[in-house]
Amino acid sequence: MPFPQRDDVASKSQAPGEPSAKGHLLQMSEIHGLAVHAAGAQLLPYKFDPGEIKPYEVEIKISHCGVCRSDINLIDNDWGISKYPFIPGHEIVGTVVGVGAHVRNLSPGQRVGVGWQADSCGMCEWCRRGDEHLCAQAQPTCVGRNGGFADKVRVNSRFAIPLPEGLDSENAAPLLCAGVTVYTPLRNLGARPSSRVGVIGIGGLGHLGIQFARVFGAEVTAFSTSKEKESEAKDLGAHEFVNTRDTGALKKVTGSFDLLLSTIHADQDWSAYVNALRPNGVLCLVGAPPSAIQLQAPPLIGGQRMICGSSSGSPRDLHEMLDVAARHGVKAITESFAMAKANDAVTKVKKNQVRYRVVLAN
Amino acid sequence: MPFPQRDDVASKSQAPGEPSAKGHLLQMSEIHGLAVHAAGAQLLPYKFDPGEIKPYEVEIKISHCGVCRSDINLIDNDWGISKYPFIPGHEIVGTVVGVGAHVRNLSPGQRVGVGWQADSCGMCEWCRRGDEHLCAQAQPTCVGRNGGFADKVRVNSRFAIPLPEGLDSENAAPLLCAGVTVYTPLRNLGARPSSRVGVIGIGGLGHLGIQFARVFGAEVTAFSTSKEKESEAKDLGAHEFVNTRDTGALKKVTGSFDLLLSTIHADQDWSAYVNALRPNGVLCLVGAPPSAIQLQAPPLIGGQRMICGSSSGSPRDLHEMLDVAARHGVKAITESFAMAKANDAVTKVKKNQVRYRVVLAN
Repeated sequence: MPFPQRDDVASKSQAPGEPSAKGHLLQMSEIHGLAVHAAGAQLLPYKFDPGEIKPYEVEIKISHCGVCRSDINLIDNDWGISKYPFIPGHEIVGTVVGVGAHVRNLSPGQRVGVGWQADSCGMCEWCRRGDEHLCAQAQPTCVGRNGGFADKVRVNSRFAIPLPEGLDSENAAPLLCAGVTVYTPLRNLGARPSSRVGVIGIGGLGHLGIQFARVFGAEVTAFSTSKEKESEAKDLGAHEFVNTRDTGALKKVTGSFDLLLSTIHADQDWSAYVNALRPNGVLCLVGAPPSAIQLQAPPLIGGQRMICGSSSGSPRDLHEMLDVAARHGVKAITESFAMAKANDAVTKVKKNQVRYRVVLAN
Repeated sequence: MPFPQRDDVASKSQAPGEPSAKGHLLQMSEIHGLAVHAAGAQLLPYKFDPGEIKPYEVEIKISHCGVCRSDINLIDNDWGISKYPFIPGHEIVGTVVGVGAHVRNLSPGQRVGVGWQADSCGMCEWCRRGDEHLCAQAQPTCVGRNGGFADKVRVNSRFAIPLPEGLDSENAAPLLCAGVTVYTPLRNLGARPSSRVGVIGIGGLGHLGIQFARVFGAEVTAFSTSKEKESEAKDLGAHEFVNTRDTGALKKVTGSFDLLLSTIHADQDWSAYVNALRPNGVLCLVGAPPSAIQLQAPPLIGGQRMICGSSSGSPRDLHEMLDVAARHGVKAITESFAMAKANDAVTKVKKNQVRYRVVLAN
């Protein structure tokens, strides 16, 4: 019993191979993954028996899994919520190989993707609205569950999203967390062809943020501390580039943006970014800085400006984002590692050496 | 020439009584007001010649003028923008007595109201959208112009809003600044019958905020440091009352509100208010606290919460708000002073002794 899991009482009370209460045969299915056994430790081979497949679950044979900064935070227990042994991974692409008795939306053989979330209560106001990521009982794919650094994974079938044919599996994997995290606020906060959008931080999230902002038709400015990223940012679609290490760089763009999307996890001069907004402009955080954000009220009040946060997205958002990515050719720029080399991949992500997203392949 | 005014070159270069360049007769019109001559000074009788009425201006004979907290800030030069002699007043009700040559929307004899704003460029993107209050050249009614503590005032006719018949002039005056300031964010931020709205601070703005939130059909909670306001807040329409001096009062309402409207000018535990929001909830400031607001990012990101500001409103917002107030019986609770007793009124406002708004009457 490596992991605490919700509603797994039935699987604990039954031996594999026995018929379940509802008469469906239990599936014999050992899962082979890579787990860390203590904060900051190396990933080691780890196998477990997932027990009977639950009525609304699918089992997915994993072909690819992205490595997200959150996986590193969880490996290191930065948020104090990790439990060990811990199998990371929540940017999963694979093929359905098993379905629970009540699954109607997926069939074995379908290619699907799974992001940050693997389940929700399915009944609350947020689930009813299609905002399952706001459900108080939302279950992350690899917190209290076993994630995608493995050969297989099980999730509630509502959180396994069919992948459009046009998307390559390796390039699509990072869309399932990084992609939807930047797509959703652009959509919800009204990015459009008349918008001036800034993407702050050009990494795993930011390089997708530039591409999606272009898809909405916006004029796009990339903000980065790395001058050498200017040409890459422009290749990705940015019209302008602001090197935030330049003295007075933010002051020069005062009153310029309708929407600023901050993908970075470092403290910033947030007042300068608020001042870079036009009237009615929004600064949206998808990366969390370590210190409190300090803001003066008058620039918010006088210009009707706004600061908000956005977290991943719901299955509805994932469907829409994947469809948009396929139609418009948005894809993650990836570096591939064999699953067995996951420790090397993690090290590279920790060192911020990735351009722009690592994907593990089985 | 008591006041610097925009585009007043023509009036300076012509003597009263001469025909203007466009052939309209100049109107002889001495205005008698009350002005302070130095920061924090008493109001003293003060008269001036406003010169020729400009083509798009109306002259209004003032019957009532509300006293707003901003008038006190301007008297005391709290914002460093006051110029003396200074005539306060920007919650004006009166009757049109003169119209410029190009005015088509108003006629002498009409009852109108004027709020915080008296003019804008009329050409920029914000003016074109009907968001004149966001125009970079917005002219406040009593900053760089002579305000409503007077017998007459002149403003651009677009900013003189006809008052619906159902509104009493004295009760309507405070709607023109305080009213639109709370109405506009309720409308723009989507208050509706399913909403749970909190109004923080039950004073001049807050007592109107409760009434308008009820008009939108919301479930309304009043937040106040004054326990004795509970029954009044409930009489105004609040369903619930939170005494914010009670230990743990804010913690008890964690995750409760879709919209919190803060009308207060004092520092608060803003993180506690953000935590009092439900997912997707918005904390909107219409009062400016003196210190920087400090916020942790995770509650914004995890719950897709938002903090924003809102300032007064445009002529479109004023029209709509006045119409709604007339239809639904929203009115300011006022204490009346004769214009000549304006100093007494100002003193009472400074001492926070007003329930809930002072109005001067000519």
